[in-house]
Amino acid sequence: MERLPGFRDFYPEPLPDRDAWSADLRHHIFAAWRNTARRYGFREYDGPPLEPLDLYTVKSGAEIVGQLYHFTDKGGRDVALRPEMTPTLARMAAAHDRHYRKPLKWFAIPQLFRYERQQKGRLREHFQFNADLIGEADPAGDAELIALLIDSLRALGLTADDFVVRLSSRNAWQAFFEQHARPGATPYDFYQAIDKLERDPPEATQARLDAVGIPLDAVRHFIDSGQPTPELARILAELGARGLAPFVRVDYGVIRGLAYYTGPVFEAFDRHGKFRALAGGGRYDDLIKRLSNGRVDLPALGFGMGDVVLAELLKDRRLRPDRFAQLDAFLLIEDESLRPDSLQLLQTLREAGLAVDYPLVAAKSDKQFKRALDLGTVHTVRLERTPEGQVHARVKHLASRSELVSPLAEVARHLRSEPAAPAPAPASPAA
Amino acid sequence: MERLPGFRDFYPEPLPDRDAWSADLRHHIFAAWRNTARRYGFREYDGPPLEPLDLYTVKSGAEIVGQLYHFTDKGGRDVALRPEMTPTLARMAAAHDRHYRKPLKWFAIPQLFRYERQQKGRLREHFQFNADLIGEADPAGDAELIALLIDSLRALGLTADDFVVRLSSRNAWQAFFEQHARPGATPYDFYQAIDKLERDPPEATQARLDAVGIPLDAVRHFIDSGQPTPELARILAELGARGLAPFVRVDYGVIRGLAYYTGPVFEAFDRHGKFRALAGGGRYDDLIKRLSNGRVDLPALGFGMGDVVLAELLKDRRLRPDRFAQLDAFLLIEDESLRPDSLQLLQTLREAGLAVDYPLVAAKSDKQFKRALDLGTVHTVRLERTPEGQVHARVKHLASRSELVSPLAEVARHLRSEPAAPAPAPASPAA
Repeated sequence: MERLPGFRDFYPEPLPDRDAWSADLRHHIFAAWRNTARRYGFREYDGPPLEPLDLYTVKSGAEIVGQLYHFTDKGGRDVALRPEMTPTLARMAAAHDRHYRKPLKWFAIPQLFRYERQQKGRLREHFQFNADLIGEADPAGDAELIALLIDSLRALGLTADDFVVRLSSRNAWQAFFEQHARPGATPYDFYQAIDKLERDPPEATQARLDAVGIPLDAVRHFIDSGQPTPELARILAELGARGLAPFVRVDYGVIRGLAYYTGPVFEAFDRHGKFRALAGGGRYDDLIKRLSNGRVDLPALGFGMGDVVLAELLKDRRLRPDRFAQLDAFLLIEDESLRPDSLQLLQTLREAGLAVDYPLVAAKSDKQFKRALDLGTVHTVRLERTPEGQVHARVKHLASRSELVSPLAEVARHLRSEPAAPAPAPASPAA
Repeated sequence: MERLPGFRDFYPEPLPDRDAWSADLRHHIFAAWRNTARRYGFREYDGPPLEPLDLYTVKSGAEIVGQLYHFTDKGGRDVALRPEMTPTLARMAAAHDRHYRKPLKWFAIPQLFRYERQQKGRLREHFQFNADLIGEADPAGDAELIALLIDSLRALGLTADDFVVRLSSRNAWQAFFEQHARPGATPYDFYQAIDKLERDPPEATQARLDAVGIPLDAVRHFIDSGQPTPELARILAELGARGLAPFVRVDYGVIRGLAYYTGPVFEAFDRHGKFRALAGGGRYDDLIKRLSNGRVDLPALGFGMGDVVLAELLKDRRLRPDRFAQLDAFLLIEDESLRPDSLQLLQTLREAGLAVDYPLVAAKSDKQFKRALDLGTVHTVRLERTPEGQVHARVKHLASRSELVSPLAEVARHLRSEPAAPAPAPASPAA
């Protein structure tokens, strides 16, 4: 029985093969996202992975709609696996807009879905860090959100040598469009041409631009000029005050594909240009109003950062942790008459918050020790009976090979402290 | 635009209404599950939320199949939103059974789905803590897994007065069935009758039992006798050695609905009998072999614990945390000329791992302070310019009202330490 094409299994490390995805790396990335959001005062929310199809088809960008993973449910409803989080967020925020004081600073880590028939081998799901700031029209909000984006990547070890946020503005492009376009041309067609400029051959872009009556040279010249608009200058100044200027630059080559953006837009890219965008976002000041049928009118902006390209970049920059889960201790049970005492100690250590494993059934010493090494334990602990019939523990720190004998009540403390001096206890032959 | 019936939105606390689900409580529960699994040496995995329909219809229990949330995708595949995690786990473990040394101790926290047309108001999704132990046939494995179940609930503050694990055995019931049933009767019909015994009226149970030729009195007598089988006695002894005896009792009234269980089975219940089962599981020694078409033969057992009943129980026992996210500090910006310095300090504090928020735009002092209180901050921090033109910070601990003046470089340290003595700095009028 195989899993569906385009979906991933996430395995514990060490991974079974090169193509396997790591549940541990996923957790590492999610923890960095969540912790950065916490430091920034962003609060977690979530919505259903399945939403009414209308939530996407009626109001969103055309690019999303063509890739929807949708179907009719048993009750005859047209539904879709969520392709993006923003419509859900807008729905939720509008439903309780009077309850929460603005600005809202909210984040989520949803799994998102898309279905394209043509693309073999392409993933049909990914996880995405979504952060949004709702209820603030000032560019200070854009700066705060972009700072969160930057620090989320830095939390994973990436530096200004690794990535840059390219900052642009729909407002700047709209002014350009109004100045240059043929009467009757639609801005969205023009934005699509700009969005695909870096990926498509020049002839394809030229064809798209011809449809709105704008010469490619004028577009290229505008991008090369790179003059920040006043709102972009404000954003840059705020980021500069935080010391984050090296992570951002104005670049009108970015415009974002989705239809609903209204102001500043941005994308984070790998500096070496090896990967697709790491993250992207922008202002969508009209979306909440449209999705709430005019009932709630709140300016808003947000970004999404996917796990797939990020995982590739971390691997490329050798920032993928070598080792994930570690046990604090593995209990060796070499004398089965000590199993009940060992189980009691096991429980005590786990209740003290330590990660401890043990052999479920009787096994040879060398097999137990091999298992302990396999599981990546920091210490081994072995109970011993003294000639007087007392039971004590022999605690061994594997990396330093230092060993000590401890009363059972002190084992947790020893497991928590790194060994300093050479083994203070009478040495026994190394295991 | 409404969300689909049976699905939940998860909001940040404080919740907008009594029916809203809390993203913060969800995180609190997930963290307890994940941390307990870590202490027990269980490793995280995950699979796709969408699987081939066959994974469930061909091999699983009849109870699941009637509730599947399934459809045909754009590529003509029959697919289902996962109703349980065990078939996915069995598929994944069988796919790489040579890579991982046994026993595997794996866990996941999937969102699971079901679709019943009849039940109005019933949820169509929930989250479930799934833990499984693969590759160990000895009852020591059952004991380890049940101990994990118990400690997962204890990690949320629940005690032996709050819940009990009712331990039973398919083997015991199978022996009973073979002794009492009419020739040709099928065990699964009998197990269904036992599974529904506590929920159905006696006549319905009697009708089910008549079909297999077993008198209700014989069933009742067997349940009342409650003698542990040798394997259950082993499990009880191992749990006893850990000090967990008060959390478990033999109770043959439990049998579990799913078809694939083979040995010991168990369910955790609220002691007051107010709620449905908190968790349930058991051995399924044949399932991996069946799902891998005989290629991989591994004994296994596992349990699932849902978030919905658990959240209700925590609320009932007043174990739901009152307060969730807290800011370490809120920066008050009362002098706009100090905004750049405030932003620099903001960045420094966040980089030090502290959760800090601030007013995005200029606002009156009292409005800023109200916002700080709303967000539940521990401290406020305000920059001030000395007559000599130096900038220092006034750090106030709101609960104790103690206040001190600090150089900017020392603010992070002050935010980390609880105030001990009364404010050492020259006091200023309270904000």
